[in-house]
Amino acid sequence: MKYLESLRNKTIKDTIALSTKKERDKTGLFVLEGERLVSEIDDPDSIEYIIVSESYDGEIPNTKNAYLVSDELFAHLSDTVHPQGILAVCHKLKYNIDTAFLSQNPLFVILENLQDPGNLGTIIRTADAAGADAVFLSKGTVDLYNPKVVRSTMGSLFHLPIYTGIDVAEIIYECKKHNIYTLAAHLAGVGTPYAAKLYAPSAILIGNEASGLTPETATMADELVRIPMPGKAESMNASVAAAILIYEAVRQRLSEV
Amino acid sequence: MKYLESLRNKTIKDTIALSTKKERDKTGLFVLEGERLVSEIDDPDSIEYIIVSESYDGEIPNTKNAYLVSDELFAHLSDTVHPQGILAVCHKLKYNIDTAFLSQNPLFVILENLQDPGNLGTIIRTADAAGADAVFLSKGTVDLYNPKVVRSTMGSLFHLPIYTGIDVAEIIYECKKHNIYTLAAHLAGVGTPYAAKLYAPSAILIGNEASGLTPETATMADELVRIPMPGKAESMNASVAAAILIYEAVRQRLSEV
Repeated sequence: MKYLESLRNKTIKDTIALSTKKERDKTGLFVLEGERLVSEIDDPDSIEYIIVSESYDGEIPNTKNAYLVSDELFAHLSDTVHPQGILAVCHKLKYNIDTAFLSQNPLFVILENLQDPGNLGTIIRTADAAGADAVFLSKGTVDLYNPKVVRSTMGSLFHLPIYTGIDVAEIIYECKKHNIYTLAAHLAGVGTPYAAKLYAPSAILIGNEASGLTPETATMADELVRIPMPGKAESMNASVAAAILIYEAVRQRLSEV
Repeated sequence: MKYLESLRNKTIKDTIALSTKKERDKTGLFVLEGERLVSEIDDPDSIEYIIVSESYDGEIPNTKNAYLVSDELFAHLSDTVHPQGILAVCHKLKYNIDTAFLSQNPLFVILENLQDPGNLGTIIRTADAAGADAVFLSKGTVDLYNPKVVRSTMGSLFHLPIYTGIDVAEIIYECKKHNIYTLAAHLAGVGTPYAAKLYAPSAILIGNEASGLTPETATMADELVRIPMPGKAESMNASVAAAILIYEAVRQRLSEV
C-alpha cells in the first residue's frame, strides 16, 4: 500500500475532482465512501483504487491499487463530517436495458426530473426493499453518482439495475409494448392507488418535487391516481409518495399469492 | 417598520441565538422562515416579531413588531442558502394532551429517539396528509423547532397537534387505557401491516434510524409487524417505514367506509 502525502498528488487531485458530475461523466468513475458501502462491491474489477486513512482499522477489499493517507488528508477527500476512513473509486455500474424487460411480472420505478439527492437515494432503497425489478432515471434527474445519493441508497445502488439518462417518453412506450401498466401519482388523478392494478406488470412514475410530472408524461401514463390526503397537507414528500405506491404494489402482490 | 442596521443589535443577536435548542428552550421562541411557512401562522398573537429583508416583496403578516434589514444582514439570520427574505420569531405551539384522546377513531404517531431533522419533518407532513390526530415525540427525539425540521414539515407543523418531550411508556399506557391499539414496525415482527387492525383506534410507533425502538417500548407495544422486504435491502428509511404504516391505516379506513 503506497503512502500519498500531499494534496498535490495526482491521485488525490483526481479523487477530489470526482465530486463534480462533469468529471464523473468524463472519467466514468465515482467515489464510494464508508466501510459498509465499500463492502457491498461485488465485482473487485469495478474498483479503480482504494484510499484509506491511517486510523482506519476496518475491512479493506482485495485490490492491487490501495493508498494510505493521513487522517487530515482523508478529511479533504471525504464528503462527510465524520469520515470512516475508507473510500473506493469505482467504475460506474452498467446494465443492459433489454434485460429489464425479461422480468416476470415486473415492477418498475420511473423518476422524472427528481432533484433532491436524499429523495433519490431513499427511493432507490425503497425500490430495493420492495424487490422492484429496475429503476429508471430521466435525463433531468439528479446524478445517481452524486455522493449524497450514493450514501442515502445505503448499498441498494448495487442491488437492482438502475438506468440513467432515460428518455421518459421512450421508456413509457417500451412499457406499453411489453404490456406493463404505467401509473402515476397526480393531483388530477381520480382513483386511489388501492383500486389500481398494481399486482399486474406495472411501472410507477414519480415526478419532480416541486412541479410533479411534466404534462407530456402525465398524458402518456395509462392511469393517474390520487393518493388520498384526508388531512390538511397540500402535498407530500416525493420519496413518501413513491413509497406508498411501491408498497401498495407489494401489498397487492402478496395478497395475490 | 423599524430599520435594524447592525449584527450588534439586540433583536438581531436574539434571533441568531435561537438557532440553538438551549436558547429556544429558555425563551419558548423559535424561528419560522420563508413566505409560505410564515403565511401558515393562524394566530397573529403567536408572533413575537417579524424580520424582512430590503428586497423582499411578498406578503407580510399584520404585526406591530416588524423590522427591516439589509439583504446582507438577513443572510446572517437565515438558515437557507437562498433566503426568501422573511422570518417570524414565534412562541412555541402548545397543545393540551388530554384533547388528543377525545378524537373519534384516533390515529396517532409516536416517535422514539428519531434523530434526523428531515425524517421528523417528513413524518409530520405525512401524518398531516393522512389526517392523523396527533404526533408524539419522545424526550430523545430531535427538537421539533430545529430550523430543518420546521422547514421540512412544509407547514404541517401548524396542522395537527404535536406533543414534545413525551415519556413513551406513559403514552403507551394512556393508549392502552383508551383502547388504542399500539403497533410497531420491528424486525422481530411476525405479521404484515396489511393484517393489522389499523382501521381501529391505533398508535403507530417508530424508533431511532439506526437502532429502532428501545426493547422496553417494543415489549410494551400490542403488536410488532414486519414490513415485507422481498428485495435485498436490509432496512428502510424511518420516514418511509412510517409512511407505509400510516398509509396502510388510511387504506383500511377508506375501505371501511
